[in-house]
Amino acid sequence: MAGDPYGWPVLLALVLAAAISFVSSNIFIDDARDQLILREKYMRFGSQIVMQEQEKKANRRLMALKKMEISEALKTQQFPPSMHFFQAKHLMEDSQVFHIIRKMPKGAALHLHEFGMASMEWLVKNVTYRPNCYFCITPEGILQFKFARPAPPNPSAGECSNWVLLEEHRKNSKNVTEFDNSLLKAFTMVTKDPEKIYPSEEAVWKKSQNILLSISGLVRHAPVFKDYIFQGLKEFHEDNVFFLEIRTMLWPVYELNGETHDQLWVVKAYEEVIQEFSRTHRGFMGLRLIFSEDRNKSIAIIAHSVQKAMKLRELFPHLVAGFDLVGREDTGHNLYYYKEALTIPVMHGVKLPFFFHAGETDWYGTSIDRNLVDAMVLKTTRIGHGFALTKHPILRAYSKEKDIPIEVCPISNQVMKLVSDLRNHPAASLMGSGHPMVVSSDKPAIFGAKGLSYDFYEVFMGIGGKKADLRILKLLVMNSIKYSSLVQTDKDFYMKVWKDRWNKFIEKLARRPR
Amino acid sequence: MAGDPYGWPVLLALVLAAAISFVSSNIFIDDARDQLILREKYMRFGSQIVMQEQEKKANRRLMALKKMEISEALKTQQFPPSMHFFQAKHLMEDSQVFHIIRKMPKGAALHLHEFGMASMEWLVKNVTYRPNCYFCITPEGILQFKFARPAPPNPSAGECSNWVLLEEHRKNSKNVTEFDNSLLKAFTMVTKDPEKIYPSEEAVWKKSQNILLSISGLVRHAPVFKDYIFQGLKEFHEDNVFFLEIRTMLWPVYELNGETHDQLWVVKAYEEVIQEFSRTHRGFMGLRLIFSEDRNKSIAIIAHSVQKAMKLRELFPHLVAGFDLVGREDTGHNLYYYKEALTIPVMHGVKLPFFFHAGETDWYGTSIDRNLVDAMVLKTTRIGHGFALTKHPILRAYSKEKDIPIEVCPISNQVMKLVSDLRNHPAASLMGSGHPMVVSSDKPAIFGAKGLSYDFYEVFMGIGGKKADLRILKLLVMNSIKYSSLVQTDKDFYMKVWKDRWNKFIEKLARRPR
Repeated sequence: MAGDPYGWPVLLALVLAAAISFVSSNIFIDDARDQLILREKYMRFGSQIVMQEQEKKANRRLMALKKMEISEALKTQQFPPSMHFFQAKHLMEDSQVFHIIRKMPKGAALHLHEFGMASMEWLVKNVTYRPNCYFCITPEGILQFKFARPAPPNPSAGECSNWVLLEEHRKNSKNVTEFDNSLLKAFTMVTKDPEKIYPSEEAVWKKSQNILLSISGLVRHAPVFKDYIFQGLKEFHEDNVFFLEIRTMLWPVYELNGETHDQLWVVKAYEEVIQEFSRTHRGFMGLRLIFSEDRNKSIAIIAHSVQKAMKLRELFPHLVAGFDLVGREDTGHNLYYYKEALTIPVMHGVKLPFFFHAGETDWYGTSIDRNLVDAMVLKTTRIGHGFALTKHPILRAYSKEKDIPIEVCPISNQVMKLVSDLRNHPAASLMGSGHPMVVSSDKPAIFGAKGLSYDFYEVFMGIGGKKADLRILKLLVMNSIKYSSLVQTDKDFYMKVWKDRWNKFIEKLARRPR
Repeated sequence: MAGDPYGWPVLLALVLAAAISFVSSNIFIDDARDQLILREKYMRFGSQIVMQEQEKKANRRLMALKKMEISEALKTQQFPPSMHFFQAKHLMEDSQVFHIIRKMPKGAALHLHEFGMASMEWLVKNVTYRPNCYFCITPEGILQFKFARPAPPNPSAGECSNWVLLEEHRKNSKNVTEFDNSLLKAFTMVTKDPEKIYPSEEAVWKKSQNILLSISGLVRHAPVFKDYIFQGLKEFHEDNVFFLEIRTMLWPVYELNGETHDQLWVVKAYEEVIQEFSRTHRGFMGLRLIFSEDRNKSIAIIAHSVQKAMKLRELFPHLVAGFDLVGREDTGHNLYYYKEALTIPVMHGVKLPFFFHAGETDWYGTSIDRNLVDAMVLKTTRIGHGFALTKHPILRAYSKEKDIPIEVCPISNQVMKLVSDLRNHPAASLMGSGHPMVVSSDKPAIFGAKGLSYDFYEVFMGIGGKKADLRILKLLVMNSIKYSSLVQTDKDFYMKVWKDRWNKFIEKLARRPR
C-alpha cells in the first residue's frame, strides 16, 4: 500500500526485535496480570472452600458437562440463563448439569412464600377434583373458589357470577383437558410470550396478585391447607431440600360449613403437618415460619402484627422464626414509615428477628430504595432479594461486614421484570466479591418452577459465570444452613446430616463415567 | 378474631407505651440511618461538586421537570430508560429534560466509531442522490454501493448482482419515498420490534456488520468521505459537543476512476476537514483519531498496525491520539493473545496511548472477560465500555485508584443486547461509588440516535437514578475534557471556553419560568 509508514521488511525486523525483548516484556506483563487475576480469584464466592480428592473428581465431571453445555449454547444461541425462564425451562430439563443439581442435597430454602410452594398442577389435578368445590368469575375475569356444603349463597351482584359446582361443570365440559389447562393458566404466570403478555412491572404484579386471589379459596380450605403444605414439603424433599423457612400471613382457614379458624389454629396445623411429614420422610429437618404482614397496611395494623409475631414466637419458639413485610415494595410503604411499629420489640427488650424484603426494585434513589438501609438499621437477619444492593456501596460493605446475607431468587427477579438476562443479575457482582448469600425460589409454583433446582441452575450456569464450580454450589448450600433461623445446635446437627448426604452425592458424581 | 394473641385494648396500650419511648428509639434508628445515607451520598458520582447560586436555581428547575416526568412515567408505565431505545426515542424527544440536555454544552464525545457518526438520513438524502452512484445486491441480500465513471465492470457471479445506476433506478421507481426508506432501513438497526428481529447478540452484531458493509462504498468515496466527516462534526456541534475522539481503521478511500488513497491521505483528509469546519464553526475544539484494528486479525497484522500507529502519531501528533482494537469482543481474540504486538511500543520506549475496548460482554469468567485485566496491565488510558467491570472487584478498585475512566455508551449496550432495562446498567453501581466515567454514543447513527444527548438522557434519567441532578451532568461533561487525549494546556483552554458556555446555559436555565 502506497504511503504505508512501515514496509514489510522493516516490520519483520521490528517484530524480531520485539521477540528478542519479548521475554522480559512478558514477564512484566504476566506478573502484573497474574497478581490481579489471583487477587480476584481469592475474593470470589466459594474460593475459600478446599475440595477433597473426591470433590475434585466430581468437580471435573461437573465442569466438563458445564463447558459442553455452554459450547452447545454458543452454537444454538440458546443459553437458558439469558432467556426468559418460561422459554428456557424445557432446555434446563434437558441439561445434565440440571439433573446433577436436582440430585445435589441443597440444605434449606430460606425465601419462600406460603402459597407459591406447591405446584399448581397438583392444585388442579388434586384439589379442584375434590367434592363440594364451587367457582365463580369476577367482572374482571378472575376465578374464585369456595368449598361449601350446603351450596354457598350466591355472591352479591357485581362481585362475582353465581357459584357453579366445579364437579358438574367439568362433567358437562366438552374437553376436560382444555378446562383443566385453563385453570392451570389462571394459577401460574406461564405464557409462551411473556414480553407481550406482561409489558410492565405493573402487569406482572397484577397477574401474580390475581393468582393469589384465585387460589385463595382453594388453599385456605382447612383440609386442603394441610395437604397443600404437605405437598409443598414433598416437592422440596424430592428436590433434595430438607428444611424450609416460609413467609406466611397466617390467613384464616375455613371449613365446609363456613366456620373459620384463626392464626393459632393455622400455626398448629403447620405443626401437625410437620410431624406427619417427618414421620413419613426420612431426613426431613423441619420448617419454620416468618410471620408476615402486607406493606400496604396502616402503622397501627403493622404494630399489631409485630406484637402478634412476638406472642407467636413466645408460644411456638421452635416454629416461628420472626417477622417480615411482604408485597410489592415499589407501591407499598417503606420500612421507615413503620418505624414506630418495627421498634416495638427493641423498645420492650423482646427479641424478634426480622427477615426483611428490601431492594426488590429497579428504581434507584427512591424512598423505596431506602428499604435497604432501613432493613440494616433495624438489624435484619437476612435481606429478601437485595436486588438493589450493588447500587449502594456503603450498604454493600456494611452488610458484608455484619455478615447479613441476601436471599437471591433469580427466576422470581426475572419473571417479575427486574432483570432479563440473568448473566446481568447483580448477584454476579456480589459473587465476585464473595458477598454472603443464599439462593431461593420465592414462589416457584406461580413461575411454573419447583423446588430450588431451577434457581440453582441459573446461579451456577449464568450468574456465577463460566468458572463457577462445585465450590460455589457447596458454599450456597452450606450458607443455607448457616444463615437459617435454626439455633446453633440444630444447625450443627443439620450440617452433620447434610455432610453425609453431600459425601454420598459427591461419591456418585465422581464415579460417573466421563 | 378468636385466638388473637393481643386484643385491641392491649394493643393500644402497647402502642402508647411504644410512643412514649418512641423519641429515644427514633433518635437511635435515625442516627444510624442518617450516617449510612450520608456516607453513600458523599461517595456518589458528582457529589463533590459544589453548585453556585445560579446552578442551584437551574438545578431546582431541572429536578422539578425530572420529577414530573418520572411521575408521568409511573402513570403511563412508559419510562424511556426502561424501554428499548427504538421504542423510547419519540418519548425522549417529547421530554423537556431531553431538550435541556440538548442545549447543555457537553464537552467531548470520546467513544465514537468513524462510520457511525453522521446520521443515515443524511446518507440517504444527500449521498445516494449524487451522480455516478451504483448499487448491487449480494446473494445474502446486502446492498453494496460504488461511485464510478465510467460504469464499473459487473461483479463476478455469486458475489453481487449486476451494478444498477441508482439515479435511474430511483427515477423508475414507483414510490421514491418508499425506496429511500428501504435504504434507510438497510443503513440503521432501527425496527419496531427489536426483540423479534434481533433474537440474539449474534443477530445484532450481524446486522451492524451488514450496515458497515452496505455504507462502506458510499462513505469511502473520497468526496463523500470528507463531507461525511464534516456532517458528523456538524451534528455533534448542533448537539453542543465541540471535541471528538474517533476510533478509525483508516480504510482506503477511492476516487471515481477507481484510484485509491492510502492511510496518510485519509489522515490528511481529516486535517483538511477539521480546518474547514473550524473556519465555519465558532467554538469547535477539534477532533482526534484513535487508530484501530480489527481484533480478528493475526498477531503479525496487529504488530504492523501498532507500528503504523506509532508512526502516524509521530507524523501527526496533534491528530493521532493512540491505538485500539475494535470489533466484537466475544468472538474476537483477547488482548492477551496480542501481547507481543501490544508491547512493541513499551519495548521501544515509544509512547503509544491505548484506548482499549474491554468488558463489552455479558459472559463472566471467559478469556474475553479477561480483556479488562489486560487493558489495565497494558496501561490503557481509558476503557471502552467496561460493561463487565462490576463483576471484577479488584479491577474496579484498581481502575478507580489509577483514575482510568470507563466510556459508558448506554444506548449501544442496550441495542447490542448487553442489557435491556437501562436502570440495570452496571454504570448505576459505578456511579454509586463515584467511579471515573464519561458518556458517549459509540455509533449513534446506526442506532437512529444523534450526538450525545440521547445517551446523556439515559444516564441522567435512568442509570443515575431519581436523585441524579445537575452535578452528575456537570461532572460527566468536565470528565469528558479531563479524560480526553488533549495535552494539559489544551484541556485547560477548552475547560475555560466550556465554562463560559456552561455559565450561559445555567443562566438561561435558571431564568426559565417554573
